[in-house]
Amino acid sequence: MRRALDLAARGLGATSPNPVVGCVILDRSGRTVGEGWHQRAGGPHAEVHALAEAGDDARGGTAVVTLEPCNHTGRTGPCSQALVEAGIARVVYAVADPNPTATGGARALADAGVDVEGGLFADEAAAGNIAWLTSVLHHRPYVTWKYAATLDGRTAAADGSSRWITSEEARADVHRLRAESDAVLVGAGTARADDPHLAVRGVPGAVQPLRVVLDTDASAVKRGARVLDDAAPTLVAVAEDADAGELEGGGSGAEVLRLPRSRAHEGTGLDLRALLDALHDRGVRSVLLEGGATLAGAFVAAQAVDRVIGYVAPVLLGAGPPALGDAGISTIAQALRLTVCETTRLGPDLRITAVGPAAAAPGGHASTVTSIATEES
Amino acid sequence: MRRALDLAARGLGATSPNPVVGCVILDRSGRTVGEGWHQRAGGPHAEVHALAEAGDDARGGTAVVTLEPCNHTGRTGPCSQALVEAGIARVVYAVADPNPTATGGARALADAGVDVEGGLFADEAAAGNIAWLTSVLHHRPYVTWKYAATLDGRTAAADGSSRWITSEEARADVHRLRAESDAVLVGAGTARADDPHLAVRGVPGAVQPLRVVLDTDASAVKRGARVLDDAAPTLVAVAEDADAGELEGGGSGAEVLRLPRSRAHEGTGLDLRALLDALHDRGVRSVLLEGGATLAGAFVAAQAVDRVIGYVAPVLLGAGPPALGDAGISTIAQALRLTVCETTRLGPDLRITAVGPAAAAPGGHASTVTSIATEES
Repeated sequence: MRRALDLAARGLGATSPNPVVGCVILDRSGRTVGEGWHQRAGGPHAEVHALAEAGDDARGGTAVVTLEPCNHTGRTGPCSQALVEAGIARVVYAVADPNPTATGGARALADAGVDVEGGLFADEAAAGNIAWLTSVLHHRPYVTWKYAATLDGRTAAADGSSRWITSEEARADVHRLRAESDAVLVGAGTARADDPHLAVRGVPGAVQPLRVVLDTDASAVKRGARVLDDAAPTLVAVAEDADAGELEGGGSGAEVLRLPRSRAHEGTGLDLRALLDALHDRGVRSVLLEGGATLAGAFVAAQAVDRVIGYVAPVLLGAGPPALGDAGISTIAQALRLTVCETTRLGPDLRITAVGPAAAAPGGHASTVTSIATEES
Repeated sequence: MRRALDLAARGLGATSPNPVVGCVILDRSGRTVGEGWHQRAGGPHAEVHALAEAGDDARGGTAVVTLEPCNHTGRTGPCSQALVEAGIARVVYAVADPNPTATGGARALADAGVDVEGGLFADEAAAGNIAWLTSVLHHRPYVTWKYAATLDGRTAAADGSSRWITSEEARADVHRLRAESDAVLVGAGTARADDPHLAVRGVPGAVQPLRVVLDTDASAVKRGARVLDDAAPTLVAVAEDADAGELEGGGSGAEVLRLPRSRAHEGTGLDLRALLDALHDRGVRSVLLEGGATLAGAFVAAQAVDRVIGYVAPVLLGAGPPALGDAGISTIAQALRLTVCETTRLGPDLRITAVGPAAAAPGGHASTVTSIATEES
């Protein structure tokens, strides 16, 4: 199953709106005779790839799959049927498929006389498919907030200079993160200040994410902005009443999405739930929030952050803009408490990954981060 | 040598102004027959403890010591002589003794026909004795800045509430850190806001550190302050021109130290170099700076921070006071760049330890943190 999970992870960022899935076929003697993973939406499922490689050796063998084999005919036929036809005797899968249109694969396999076992490495597999599971269960994308800051939480010096706080290794890792995401999101402030490109560089075979700029008043993204080049598709979200004539005039390279203004932030900013709904409807299963502080604060305030990935440089500044802006939290009992799930060195820097309490709890792999009170001790 | 280093570490916080030293005696066959460590200033050196345990088994054996055996008669006799008299045939030590009054032990041993080898695990041993080495080479204490903050660098919420950002495990670790330090230092702001106690609790056998409050205008530490109780000695540093009558009147429980005002901070605050000089003169080899943000900023600005230990809770606030205040850094090229040497989980929190570039470089174990420019890449 570990091998199947590794195979599944290769599809991250390329399979949406489908899950990532890995499959290993063992023959009667337990020897690996086929491997596959779901590589892109519309392409063959992991099981089909693996069965093709195994050929006749699959007969009487075992299929190890990270997700319950599907039971429906979409752009490809049902995998449960393919496994039965290949003569597979036993199927071991990690996570049950919660998708109402695809579920029932385990039942169909059992009905056909196949020995079926689920739940193996379920937590690991759920973590690997967290974006897809979140979207199936909650009908919205899984949101990761990424920031880069000093040890003392600054994203730039007092004069605004920030190149470079983090190392080349950390910055390269951000491109890997973008490649695993369906959409990359920034606010108007970042668009105006940094003119970011937001496309993936340096990741061979990467599927480019949808670039999304929240430009409420249609004032930040101008013709010639780097985000409007043809390196990746771009969506500019503006308020329903914004004058976006320049962008909508055609030929800007970007699609304009009109959204209601947020009521939470006194008329500034867009309704983030409406944004996430719209992105979900377009098949976006994972969103990488790349800042800045104001946008991140609005997402935290909206309880719309599932995971935080901080690139922390061992640098001290003592002044300069903070990583996170106002999130509507005024006292310690309202603090957003996360669970650290990984710390990694990247060159001189640290990458700290933390998830919301529900996301970290066993079986609670697809819930929103919620704000919980701190215990007095 | 690893065992000797572990033994040495047991003395941290209790041996100043002496170094920590560990010693293991092996007999002719390489069997451990004696162990010892320097437990407190004025008490027997590590070698003497270990030789006493070894007795006659030391004859023809090897002494493994973390520091070059001393060659002078202070409150105890020279260890080099004790080793020769015990019939030790070979001495292996880690770090040479840079102390001009004690050095020469290796030469004396060699002259007496003992086989002597130095430099084994020198980096580890130097790191373990970093405070003492700093003080011998630079005539000032080794300064560690400790802070506790959220992932986004806040030490409290917007309304000032901060109990508790970090976990019980992290807070217990701070007491271990205090126990390893000769002095614990806070500024007037912290003294006024938190009325901290600053003594060690929950560490069996701990030697209490000197509690130091920088109270420039003698306005923060009032009679009845917790820091004035008899749990540990206390020093209140005030400006030469401050009216400290209440504290100096006797019976306050604290000693008053008068220092010049700092020229760097426009007349506010005390001259930190003068403070460190005064502490060094009192035998203080290690100082734990416990905040707050203003004092830490002043120490960073004075290039007087050797090590940073951050207790980082996976918590987001988005507002509230920052961990580090103004350090005179206005642009990224002036940023203080450190090297992460350890990250550890403490309950739900992370402890991140970083040292200045000189301190982290091989052989550069006793230099001040300096500010270096960032490379463009």
